[in-house]
Amino acid sequence: MAHHNVDELPVLQAIGRIETPFKTLADCPRNGRQLDPAPICLAHVFKEFQPGLQSLEGFSHLILIYALHEMRVTELTFTPPFDATPRGVFATRAPRRPNKLGMSVVAFDGFATADTLKVRYLDCLDGTPLLDIKPYLPSTDSVPEATMGWLEKHRTR
Amino acid sequence: MAHHNVDELPVLQAIGRIETPFKTLADCPRNGRQLDPAPICLAHVFKEFQPGLQSLEGFSHLILIYALHEMRVTELTFTPPFDATPRGVFATRAPRRPNKLGMSVVAFDGFATADTLKVRYLDCLDGTPLLDIKPYLPSTDSVPEATMGWLEKHRTR
Repeated sequence: MAHHNVDELPVLQAIGRIETPFKTLADCPRNGRQLDPAPICLAHVFKEFQPGLQSLEGFSHLILIYALHEMRVTELTFTPPFDATPRGVFATRAPRRPNKLGMSVVAFDGFATADTLKVRYLDCLDGTPLLDIKPYLPSTDSVPEATMGWLEKHRTR
Repeated sequence: MAHHNVDELPVLQAIGRIETPFKTLADCPRNGRQLDPAPICLAHVFKEFQPGLQSLEGFSHLILIYALHEMRVTELTFTPPFDATPRGVFATRAPRRPNKLGMSVVAFDGFATADTLKVRYLDCLDGTPLLDIKPYLPSTDSVPEATMGWLEKHRTR
């Protein structure tokens, strides 16, 4: 099993930039649905990638993947502030993961301009590099009955 | 707005490798829920990342992010085989995206060994480099009522 064959991994490029009200890590909510009402955020897509937005209208929700660009620390286990037990990072949504990839399911409130999407339910920093936009498909992405393991007792919604 | 500041983007590293029955792109189903029953796939996590798996038990579903490592083509618009209209790649789940990042919501059927997860609902190639594992949280990730835009008429489930 090839272990670290870097050649086969994509070199990331930003396709745009995310604008949120959260200027520092301390400003970021614990998750994108913690604030009620959730603020409108903007996903600015760079001009050269704008053709990729065609047919996005009609999707009520999107999946955004972005770079956790200010996170320098990787910790495979840590004790969350709201818990008392060390947890593996893959059992959390914390940003200190080996690959600094963030992912959020957002409500899509339409286009502010031809290259700017209005979205809700982000918890990331203002200026976050946007890597991908995918349509949210309830047929494959929605599992209302999913169980939440150790996070069940910390459920916020 | 900084456009291509590559320094701030993470350099990806595989945390493991995914084993599926799909040896070629032609073998891959259209989505992870097309095959019924969905085959059990394996997510092998490299030893050095194994501590990050702590407390994963109890989550019925996970989000896997992986590299679409055999996709060389990027097309911002294309006409899907099951449709007649050109669509923007960000309005599809097709792999020909600018950043070759795939994402699937999978059922987590427990550990085959201490470093190998049994999962269902993947549609990716055998040998796919695994980049991240996140717990699936219905509180933030499940939107049963989401609308599917142009894909509504092609809904498979």
